[in-house]
Amino acid sequence: MEELCINLLKKRGVELEDIADCVIFLQKKYVPELNQEIALEEVKMVLRKREVQNAILTGIYLDEMAESTMEEGPLKDALVSDNGLYGIDEVLAYGICNLYGSIALTNYGYIDKVKPLIIGKLNQKTQQCNTFLDDIVGAIAASAASRLAHNR
Amino acid sequence: MEELCINLLKKRGVELEDIADCVIFLQKKYVPELNQEIALEEVKMVLRKREVQNAILTGIYLDEMAESTMEEGPLKDALVSDNGLYGIDEVLAYGICNLYGSIALTNYGYIDKVKPLIIGKLNQKTQQCNTFLDDIVGAIAASAASRLAHNR
Amino acid sequence: MEELCINLLKKRGVELEDIADCVIFLQKKYVPELNQEIALEEVKMVLRKREVQNAILTGIYLDEMAESTMEEGPLKDALVSDNGLYGIDEVLAYGICNLYGSIALTNYGYIDKVKPLIIGKLNQKTQQCNTFLDDIVGAIAASAASRLAHNR
Amino acid sequence: MEELCINLLKKRGVELEDIADCVIFLQKKYVPELNQEIALEEVKMVLRKREVQNAILTGIYLDEMAESTMEEGPLKDALVSDNGLYGIDEVLAYGICNLYGSIALTNYGYIDKVKPLIIGKLNQKTQQCNTFLDDIVGAIAASAASRLAHNR
Repeated sequence: MEELCINLLKKRGVELEDIADCVIFLQKKYVPELNQEIALEEVKMVLRKREVQNAILTGIYLDEMAESTMEEGPLKDALVSDNGLYGIDEVLAYGICNLYGSIALTNYGYIDKVKPLIIGKLNQKTQQCNTFLDDIVGAIAASAASRLAHNR
Repeated sequence: MEELCINLLKKRGVELEDIADCVIFLQKKYVPELNQEIALEEVKMVLRKREVQNAILTGIYLDEMAESTMEEGPLKDALVSDNGLYGIDEVLAYGICNLYGSIALTNYGYIDKVKPLIIGKLNQKTQQCNTFLDDIVGAIAASAASRLAHNR
Repeated sequence: MEELCINLLKKRGVELEDIADCVIFLQKKYVPELNQEIALEEVKMVLRKREVQNAILTGIYLDEMAESTMEEGPLKDALVSDNGLYGIDEVLAYGICNLYGSIALTNYGYIDKVKPLIIGKLNQKTQQCNTFLDDIVGAIAASAASRLAHNR
Repeated sequence: MEELCINLLKKRGVELEDIADCVIFLQKKYVPELNQEIALEEVKMVLRKREVQNAILTGIYLDEMAESTMEEGPLKDALVSDNGLYGIDEVLAYGICNLYGSIALTNYGYIDKVKPLIIGKLNQKTQQCNTFLDDIVGAIAASAASRLAHNR
């Protein structure tokens, strides 16, 4: 399952290193020794959780359907336009962050507003629908940041 | 949107009266004057919230895809078997309940275990995939129950 | 800290074995080999988490103040009467359960309604204010139950 | 209760206008017509919710006790130093934001990191303990911002 999720992320344009860079963006000032290797280790630990894997599978499935066979209607409209009032993408993201406590939640809120690095790239209008993907990547990075904060 | 959600629920076998009966199940002992008309009014108020509508659209879409075009794999397996460790159905349900406070959350937890009335029926193995639907119905009933508790 | 929390619980009338019995109540039908030793192990794992420890310290502090030096007013009224609309006791409980995913949340909602064993005893009107304590004990038991469900 | 909460906030150095300014900080770029009067109206609507009032009473009580009669120990240490790993202040803040949906949650995460205006002032080390207060103010502002986003 972990392998499958890593491959799905890669297929949608996200390498684990991209997520690790977001962790560094969030925690560098609190953890001076932080580097990509350390950040990557935490990202991988987050990806080992079953609920995280299920959020990835479900969110990316919805993004892919919005690009392909989903019929016209309010759900497709919300997904294709990444409507800020849709909200279910953030609900899934919080489902991940909640597992890592309040530091994950505030970091996710921050990164979701600032949209640095890969999150900014995913958020630009492209051919691909990334409505769920950008929030899931942000939630994984924020959760890895929370692990770091608690362990160091 | 409200109309659309009510029709979607009906198409999947859930009448608003069925949800109202779950509200009565949850609140009858606290609100003696409770009847189907009062309960129905609260259910309709919950269905007017945009986040609730989006959870309904998204959850039922996933249930329907699991019955039809979703390709074989761990997501379809989890949905078709209503695997208790999948967890995303409850994440969506909590996305609804959170909007109505702690009384909604505890009521949802209770009704999700006891599975009374329509929730029990949805949960029986049938041709139809109700993995998201039973949780969404429980969350709407629990939210309506919380509204009742706060308003009376 | 873990020691301190265990001693605080004991001082307020809760032994770890009481919480373990609640875990058995919740999970016995899913995990036939479950016994007090296994349940106790999971309870101890939950008590090792920093956020859980902080919830215990904070909740019991509020209960104790409500019994002693807290001045008259709406906060004391809510705590002394365990007012069902107060809600902050459940907020702290969800702060614990969220860390253990959706199975913890639904189990907490259920146990908070049914109030078995020690939770029922704590909830009876006594000299002692247990407004936070009963929810915290329920949340720890529900979290330990979720750990069990995921690990077996 | 609403009056009491407004007076408590004032006594601790927070005017409703300070919170309204945080709402403007969060939403000005999305709602061009936003001014202090509009923002203040939304802040007052948030303060009318019972759970918000109870979070204010409870959080400020803990801040005040940390300054005065709370005995030495890990709870007092965490509160006096506003320890980032304590986490219960954010749990209370999320108890507020959850009622206003995902836009409130992300806005709170953002404002809690950036600490603009009154939140920055509260966060500076002073004689006064503001461990809960700054998070509660951020949560009220984020919730008012979410109301604005949904209503305009």
